[in-house]
Amino acid sequence: MNQPFEDLLAAMTSALGAEVVVRDPSITTAHAGDWSEARKHAPPVVLFPRTPEQVATVLKLCNEAGQKVVVQGGLTGLAGGATPQDHEFALSLAKLNRIDLIDAVGGTATVQAGVVLEELQQQVEEQGWYFPLDLGARGSCQVGGNAAVNAGGNRVIRYGTMRDLVLGIEVALPDGRLMTMLNGMTKNTTGIDLKHLFIGSEGTLGVITRLVVKLFPKPRGSCTALCALSSFDAAAKLIRLSRAALPTLSAFEVMWSDFMAAAEMVSDLRPLFGQEFPLYVLIECLGDDESIERQALEQFLERVLEAGEVEDAIVAQSLDDAEGLWAYRESVGELLAEMKPHAAFDVSVPMASMDRFVKSARQMLDEAFPGQRHLFFGHIGDGNLHVLSGPHTGDDLHRVEELVYSAVRHASGAISAEHGIGIIKKDFLDYSRSPEELEMMADLKRLLDPNGILNPGRIL
Amino acid sequence: MNQPFEDLLAAMTSALGAEVVVRDPSITTAHAGDWSEARKHAPPVVLFPRTPEQVATVLKLCNEAGQKVVVQGGLTGLAGGATPQDHEFALSLAKLNRIDLIDAVGGTATVQAGVVLEELQQQVEEQGWYFPLDLGARGSCQVGGNAAVNAGGNRVIRYGTMRDLVLGIEVALPDGRLMTMLNGMTKNTTGIDLKHLFIGSEGTLGVITRLVVKLFPKPRGSCTALCALSSFDAAAKLIRLSRAALPTLSAFEVMWSDFMAAAEMVSDLRPLFGQEFPLYVLIECLGDDESIERQALEQFLERVLEAGEVEDAIVAQSLDDAEGLWAYRESVGELLAEMKPHAAFDVSVPMASMDRFVKSARQMLDEAFPGQRHLFFGHIGDGNLHVLSGPHTGDDLHRVEELVYSAVRHASGAISAEHGIGIIKKDFLDYSRSPEELEMMADLKRLLDPNGILNPGRIL
Repeated sequence: MNQPFEDLLAAMTSALGAEVVVRDPSITTAHAGDWSEARKHAPPVVLFPRTPEQVATVLKLCNEAGQKVVVQGGLTGLAGGATPQDHEFALSLAKLNRIDLIDAVGGTATVQAGVVLEELQQQVEEQGWYFPLDLGARGSCQVGGNAAVNAGGNRVIRYGTMRDLVLGIEVALPDGRLMTMLNGMTKNTTGIDLKHLFIGSEGTLGVITRLVVKLFPKPRGSCTALCALSSFDAAAKLIRLSRAALPTLSAFEVMWSDFMAAAEMVSDLRPLFGQEFPLYVLIECLGDDESIERQALEQFLERVLEAGEVEDAIVAQSLDDAEGLWAYRESVGELLAEMKPHAAFDVSVPMASMDRFVKSARQMLDEAFPGQRHLFFGHIGDGNLHVLSGPHTGDDLHRVEELVYSAVRHASGAISAEHGIGIIKKDFLDYSRSPEELEMMADLKRLLDPNGILNPGRIL
Repeated sequence: MNQPFEDLLAAMTSALGAEVVVRDPSITTAHAGDWSEARKHAPPVVLFPRTPEQVATVLKLCNEAGQKVVVQGGLTGLAGGATPQDHEFALSLAKLNRIDLIDAVGGTATVQAGVVLEELQQQVEEQGWYFPLDLGARGSCQVGGNAAVNAGGNRVIRYGTMRDLVLGIEVALPDGRLMTMLNGMTKNTTGIDLKHLFIGSEGTLGVITRLVVKLFPKPRGSCTALCALSSFDAAAKLIRLSRAALPTLSAFEVMWSDFMAAAEMVSDLRPLFGQEFPLYVLIECLGDDESIERQALEQFLERVLEAGEVEDAIVAQSLDDAEGLWAYRESVGELLAEMKPHAAFDVSVPMASMDRFVKSARQMLDEAFPGQRHLFFGHIGDGNLHVLSGPHTGDDLHRVEELVYSAVRHASGAISAEHGIGIIKKDFLDYSRSPEELEMMADLKRLLDPNGILNPGRIL
């Protein structure tokens, strides 16, 4: 029997109650994409705090005992950050799942960190508002986790990333302090804006317990089109023209021809155009009235087709049509399954370097792994490119990463645009951040978590 | 003769050259709104570094010598932050004024911190792009200063504050490190986003030397309308309706009737409506085509007039018309001059509390200072309210501040929405920030500026 461990458990149970402190080695809460090795590590204890104060108490007791803690949200992360390591206690926010307030006048919502994204989306829509963050994991991922990794998704071009949507946070620190900074205003210039330390830092500096998020008027109509383009330059120009002419532009998703061909095959979709084109772009407008959106999009596409800036285009005439167009982009789920074991990247590259990056990365991948598929697609309106390569055997995965991340470094890009660093990209962090930046991050970690008990080994 | 002072000057001159180190006590570079007492404090030395590296060297030498430094941009700040105190050296960014790159593909600009805002606006417009930050001081204020105070202005409702417009920065630290973090991408989730430590912290943690900012397609047409409303509730509803129906909405400026009456008088403007209304709203749309903007705005206003949500409205039919409508809002300059010595506030209040705040603050001001004028107006779409009260004799100014800031605290508002804390709002910072937040800010200051040489006494 491990006496300090038993003492800590007794102290926690006494302070928080048995429903918060759950000791059950059979609970395997971790999952992290394909990082399947780690699934074996069940945490010895899972904590389910019911209040922000209980989160702070958990951290205080663990800090005093030197017990390491891993924070868990909806367990949908793709960087291994929530996977318990080395007998860490798991701190789950699943029970911190209350929507405290929807301010229908100001257009804000105050929510606990464990609220599931889709639940928030639905609750605010019932009041005529709209929370625009949206991603595939919406039914499981939690709003606190979205903030901790600065989640992005499909509509960043219009509404920004999670960082842009969070007005205020409350955060529990490793030493047990609970910092309530539930600002509800767009403009606030009263000293250092501390919330940004915690947004995007993947729970390494503190545990977000509550958030105030911005809401938007609920869009009531959308229109989607798929365009065929002759080159990446045409896509870069089309973004600029779309942003100027379509103020309701809400998605600009680029798919290279190899991705499109693979999507058609894996999802049994028919080719939409009479011939193959180098590049396809899915454009979505989201506004107050469907007919206005369609009219604007059709007029715009007529103009760019006439000018030869787009080769061909299909405008959805119904929601079913629109789903049909999105189906190509959304076959990613099936491609991920089929190409296992795969290497999946969410990198960011400056627009001016994107074409060169794609060409050189594709060529290097083709040369090194001629038997595998290498697909390119992404939220190009935000510089965010996804690369999917596979299937690969275990040893090759690291070589693929090395190859793609080296190209990212060469293009002054970011090795993660929206999934975060977690455990699995740590080795490559210095490809995107300078030694001075890494040093400052480490300084901040030491300042806020001097004993290194919170999400240790994540990011840094 | 002060030997350490002379030694430091000799070392700086030797390292940087005489054109960088200017010793001339007659240079009075400081100005800070009405904080005229401070204008007398001429710095003993003004430094004009020509490169980011020279900024870092200045800080290193000053840090080693324990010499305090105040950073100066365009000297248009309204919080006294750039005014030399106590023989501080002035570090001017006026010579760091080069636009390094305008990326016309990606829509970003990389600029040195001392570039004047209007210069940046003009340069990018020549390339078909648009930098949307805009404020009255555009002809003098510098982009680095805009970032240091997280400037706002008139178009925040559409484009956000400076924080939302900055993608990357380079920053010189008090110990002489130069941290280059010139990210050019919208999405980047590779650990702690360090730039946010420096944006809005008013030069207390480091000196921003370069920035990458987001550009937008250049709008080619605008339309402006002035609406008369029966109540604040109607204005709150109108924001929501405007945001839903007008995706190109770029300004939503509210003026209470007392402000309007004073504006008419001071600027010799005629009343625009047949009767007086409690509230007026200036709405601007900024888009790709003037006729589309006017049509959208007219259709929207017809609808809300019919529904009784707006009492009356005037839509500008030309740019001259639009200027005529903006003239009421822009008479602030003349009001500020006429009401001297005045107390001018830029506070933020949550929308849900705004009406109560205005009513109670006005009543308290009327009771305490029945002989003075108290005017309310602001960028209400962002929760940002300006209050102008005067003329007041010196002793009363602090009482006015105490009264208004107490009401802000009561409403969970921010004592500064866009001007910053500087020197003049320090005493009230704890009205908007908790002891835990102030403590963390102090910790961060100690981490980055352990000797307290950089903008000492500002904010904290």
